[in-house]
Amino acid sequence: MSERGPRDTSGHVPMSGGAEFDAIRTMLARWGALAQGVGDDAAVLTPPPGEQLVFSTDASVEGIHFRTAWLSPEEIGARATTAALSDLAAMGARALAVLVALEVPASWQSHLLELADGIGGVVEQANARIIGGNMTRGERLSMTLTVIGATDRPVYRRGARVGDALWVTGRLGGPKHALDAWIAGTTPAPEARARFAAPVARLREGAWLAAVGARAMIDLSDGLWADAGHLAAASNVQCELWLEALPTIGAGTPLDALSSGEEYELLVATDPDLDADGFARRFGVPLTRIGVVRAAAEQAGPKVVLRESEHAPSLLRVDLPGGHDHFSA
Amino acid sequence: MSERGPRDTSGHVPMSGGAEFDAIRTMLARWGALAQGVGDDAAVLTPPPGEQLVFSTDASVEGIHFRTAWLSPEEIGARATTAALSDLAAMGARALAVLVALEVPASWQSHLLELADGIGGVVEQANARIIGGNMTRGERLSMTLTVIGATDRPVYRRGARVGDALWVTGRLGGPKHALDAWIAGTTPAPEARARFAAPVARLREGAWLAAVGARAMIDLSDGLWADAGHLAAASNVQCELWLEALPTIGAGTPLDALSSGEEYELLVATDPDLDADGFARRFGVPLTRIGVVRAAAEQAGPKVVLRESEHAPSLLRVDLPGGHDHFSA
Repeated sequence: MSERGPRDTSGHVPMSGGAEFDAIRTMLARWGALAQGVGDDAAVLTPPPGEQLVFSTDASVEGIHFRTAWLSPEEIGARATTAALSDLAAMGARALAVLVALEVPASWQSHLLELADGIGGVVEQANARIIGGNMTRGERLSMTLTVIGATDRPVYRRGARVGDALWVTGRLGGPKHALDAWIAGTTPAPEARARFAAPVARLREGAWLAAVGARAMIDLSDGLWADAGHLAAASNVQCELWLEALPTIGAGTPLDALSSGEEYELLVATDPDLDADGFARRFGVPLTRIGVVRAAAEQAGPKVVLRESEHAPSLLRVDLPGGHDHFSA
Repeated sequence: MSERGPRDTSGHVPMSGGAEFDAIRTMLARWGALAQGVGDDAAVLTPPPGEQLVFSTDASVEGIHFRTAWLSPEEIGARATTAALSDLAAMGARALAVLVALEVPASWQSHLLELADGIGGVVEQANARIIGGNMTRGERLSMTLTVIGATDRPVYRRGARVGDALWVTGRLGGPKHALDAWIAGTTPAPEARARFAAPVARLREGAWLAAVGARAMIDLSDGLWADAGHLAAASNVQCELWLEALPTIGAGTPLDALSSGEEYELLVATDPDLDADGFARRFGVPLTRIGVVRAAAEQAGPKVVLRESEHAPSLLRVDLPGGHDHFSA
């Protein structure tokens, strides 16, 4: 997405020498036409007429968000990019462009091509372009991806109304199952590992949900319980979730589904009469009704409550932390 | 710059608990109305009609770009923000919005307010807003600032023509002088320290230069010698610089001025008849003619050459590295 437009050939500005530039050149060469107009002080983008632009920035840090023992360099690059793009999906926006800021330790210099492949593959699948970035030395690999999207109707966290149905895309619990296995020194089930190592940003799904009238949406990065809390707080409502309704991976339990973070599935509040079967047919991903929006409890009351099922008479007690929290992890 | 527009009250979406959110809340509270609409998955910005948007991302890492022994937390935040905004200045763009991604070690938790003040002060001076960010734990303080600007006529590195005059804003050599002093264990001269600790993004100056016909522009982050090389390479020309013409700080030499990095002054190629006195009166910063654009040498020839002065008969031999290089530094 340089000033030349999204489908043009790359048109990189030639750069002078130096090791930093060599590393940048290595990645740019690998990306080919996927990277456009890189090499000026800043990237230029002509905004699509009549649309709003949507921005998010997201960091993935070695030792905090992933360990190199668990993932390949390509998976690490892909996962960081997906995590950033997922925020556009949660707004119902399509992806336009990505800025890639990397801190690269010496030990990673030999893996730059695989990292580039991981980032580039996800950017390409999202039909976006890499329009700029930054590279610097670091002690640990750190990737800060800034993503730019567009939409004529952004969906916020704050629009949920009492009586709305709550839906979630996909099947939950995979990332928690994989992390638990790795930390216990065992091997995660393949389905769980894939959900951690190669999550998918639900961009097409988010745009479809926005188009059919999503009132509030959020992506599951902190875990369903915590993210439902964010949505409830923003909308000044309460989210009631139904334990037995939660879609899980084969190896997962509904409780795992509540607390598993970095799923990058979407939680959405809409009218109850959404065509979930049509969604599943169109995208090959389930859309499951998992709860209902209730009136907010008093100020200090719970943002999220749990029932065994839709018609169960009483609430379940749950004792889950408010969020997957990188500071105190 | 939320969807509410640039001058509205902040309208942050309420967030749930957790230490990461506490740290974010601490900084948001300090920023007040300067931060807008933060708390959704992504920030929404309505592009100014008829203008192009300009993007850059820039990282400042403890131990690579600065040391805590040299600068206050407020200076560290301000300097990182200036470095990012300077890329907008180099495109002739005005600043709209900033995304702030921080990796914060435990030792920095008690300095978050000062860091916020440093970032916020520079954002406010640039008449921009903070529209989003990311915060995670880290081993060392790392700040990745993504800046969004707008202009109806971006200035690239590639537009310099043979015969153009080369100009530079401000006085050079301060950052190198300060770094040399600190590394030698002495105290830098106050003027030099100020140039390192509190550089200024030349946003108003860059916009003015763009408006009066700048053909190519770059900000001095790698040092005049290296950045003139970038401009020459992009424009397929050769930059001839005049040693005696280089504007230096009191304690500096013209050779220091050639190699001093992270100046965040602007190097610009224009018609020779620019009103430099008017520039100095308007901005309180000198604009100095320091050379001329020549035809490119053969492929392997020098991108930048040096003459003692404009009419000196022969070129000087210089042996300077091609760039200030964080990877091999």
